[in-house]
Amino acid sequence: MKYYIGTDKGLDLKQVNRAVEEAFADHGKNLVQMPPKLYVTLPQGDFRTMPAYLPSLGIAGVKIVNVHPNNPARGLPTVMALTILLDIATGKPEAIINATQLTDMRTGAAGAVASKYFAPKKEVVLGLIGTGRQAQAQVAAIAQEITIKEICVWSRNPVHADRFSPGITGIECHSTTIERACDCDILVTTTPSRQPLVMSEWVHEGTHINAIGADAPGKEELDPALLNRASVFVDDMAQAVHSGEINVPIQKGLYKKENISGTLGEVVIGKKRRARPDEITIFDSTGLAIQDLAIAKIAMMHGTAIVLPFP
Amino acid sequence: MKYYIGTDKGLDLKQVNRAVEEAFADHGKNLVQMPPKLYVTLPQGDFRTMPAYLPSLGIAGVKIVNVHPNNPARGLPTVMALTILLDIATGKPEAIINATQLTDMRTGAAGAVASKYFAPKKEVVLGLIGTGRQAQAQVAAIAQEITIKEICVWSRNPVHADRFSPGITGIECHSTTIERACDCDILVTTTPSRQPLVMSEWVHEGTHINAIGADAPGKEELDPALLNRASVFVDDMAQAVHSGEINVPIQKGLYKKENISGTLGEVVIGKKRRARPDEITIFDSTGLAIQDLAIAKIAMMHGTAIVLPFP
Repeated sequence: MKYYIGTDKGLDLKQVNRAVEEAFADHGKNLVQMPPKLYVTLPQGDFRTMPAYLPSLGIAGVKIVNVHPNNPARGLPTVMALTILLDIATGKPEAIINATQLTDMRTGAAGAVASKYFAPKKEVVLGLIGTGRQAQAQVAAIAQEITIKEICVWSRNPVHADRFSPGITGIECHSTTIERACDCDILVTTTPSRQPLVMSEWVHEGTHINAIGADAPGKEELDPALLNRASVFVDDMAQAVHSGEINVPIQKGLYKKENISGTLGEVVIGKKRRARPDEITIFDSTGLAIQDLAIAKIAMMHGTAIVLPFP
Repeated sequence: MKYYIGTDKGLDLKQVNRAVEEAFADHGKNLVQMPPKLYVTLPQGDFRTMPAYLPSLGIAGVKIVNVHPNNPARGLPTVMALTILLDIATGKPEAIINATQLTDMRTGAAGAVASKYFAPKKEVVLGLIGTGRQAQAQVAAIAQEITIKEICVWSRNPVHADRFSPGITGIECHSTTIERACDCDILVTTTPSRQPLVMSEWVHEGTHINAIGADAPGKEELDPALLNRASVFVDDMAQAVHSGEINVPIQKGLYKKENISGTLGEVVIGKKRRARPDEITIFDSTGLAIQDLAIAKIAMMHGTAIVLPFP
C-alpha cells in the first residue's frame, strides 16, 4: 500500500478532462457501480463518503471529503479529501491519495466536459459567479476545450473579484456587476449560496451554465424560473435530486424532476444533445465518485509515493 | 495525519467490549449519525463503505472493508480494512488505521455485549457453528463477560473443527455434530452460509444465539422457524433488514420485520430486555460503523504511528 502526495503537480489538464469524460461515458452506458454519496453532518460542516467501481477502467475505491466553510480562518482548506483505491481482484487497499487538489481539478474537468458539448460557439465570453478555488479550476479546465476570449467576474465581495483577474494570464478578465457577468456564452456558478443569485432575466438565449456550487441539500444558485426555461442535464440523477442545483426547487415544487433532460454521460455517448442553438443548457454538477477514481488513476503516476505496511 | 499499524497488539478486550457497549448505548439513544453501509460488488467479492459520527465520544470517520472469500488461496485475508478518522471541528483526516484485526475484535465485542445481556445463566456451554477467525474473536470477547465452562464446535469441514480446539486454552473444547453443538446455552454462528444450517428443533428454550455470519444480502444461517420462535434483536434496523440474518426470510415472506423485538442499543440502555428465562433470544449482527469508530479510538493508543504529510 502506498500513500501519494503532490499528485496534482504536473498533471496534464487535457488528460484529466479525457479521463473524466471517459468515466462519464461509462456512466452514460450504465457500466459503473456508484451508490449516491453518503453525507454525515458535523457541528461546523459535513463529510461525504463516495464509493464507486469502474470496471472498464479497472478502478474501485472511495473518496472521503469534508466541507467546512470556517476552515480558512484556521489556516486550513474548506475542502480536504483522501481517495482510497482497492485492488479489484482481492479488495486490498493499494493506494491512499491526498485528493484535496485533485477534487478541485476533477470538478473543473466535469465543467470542461459539459462546456465542450454544450458551448453555443467556439470562442466564448465566460461569466463567473464566485471567485474561489473552484472558479480557478473551471477556467483552467474549460480553457483546454474551447477558446475563452473574455472573462467577466462577479463576487459578493468586490475585493475578491478584483483579486481574481490578475491571476488569469492570457485572457482578458475583469470584475463587473452580476447582471453583466450573466450576459455571457458560458456562465459558471461556484458559490455556497442557499438562495438564488442568478435571475432568469439576466441570462440570454443560447447560454450554457455550469451550476457547480450546489452540492448539498439546501444549496441553490439559480432562479427556478431559469431552470424551467432551460434544458437541465445532471451528472447523476439520484445525487442531483438529493443535493444538486435542482434539490431545493424540487422540494418546493418549483421544478419537476421529470423535466430533467438527461445526464452528462448520455450526452458524452451521443444519446442526448443540445437541441437548438438558442436553447439555454444547464449542467447540474454534484461531483461523482467516478470522477475521483478517474483522476486518481492518472494522478498516481505523479507526485511522491510513501510505502506503508499492509495488511 | 498518522498511519497506525499493529494497533490490535496489547488491546485490552474488556476495554474494547466497554467501548463498543458505549457506542451501542448512544445508538439506542439515537445520538449517532450512521447511514446504512454502502455495498459495491467486485468480480470476486465486495467492499463496504461505513461512515459514522459519534458526538458523545467525539469520533467521526469511515471504515472501508472488503470480503473476498478466495483470498486465503492467494495468501491474503478474506477481510481487510482501513478506518479513517476525521477531526470533528475541521473535517481534516487525522488517522488512517489498519483495521483488519480490529474488525474481528469489534465484531467479537458486539457478540460479547449481546451475550452479557442475553445469557440465560452465568456459566454457559458455548456452541460454535463455524471455526474461522471470527469464531476465535467471539470466544475471546465473550470470555471477558461470562464464564464459559465448555465449548462445542462444529464446522462443515471436520478437520477445521478438530484444529480449532487446541487453540483454546483454559476451557474444555471439543468438536461434535451440528445437532450437539446447537444444544447449548449460547450459540454463535459465524459461517458465510447462504442457506439455513441451524434447524429450529436442535435449539432448546432459553438459548441465546449470536447470528454473526449473515452480513450481506442473500446470506443466512438460521432456520426461519427458529426466528419466529425467538425474540430477534438487531444491531441496526436498516442494515439488518438489508443484509442481516433476517434479510432472506423477509424477502421470502418467512419473517416479518414488524416482529423484530428491538436493537442491542435499546437493550444496553435498559429500554428492552429478555422477557422470560425460557425465551430464545437472537442477536442479528451486521457490523456497525460505530463499533469500528469506538475500537479505533482506543486502538490508536497502541501500535506504531507513521506520520504522513497532509494536506
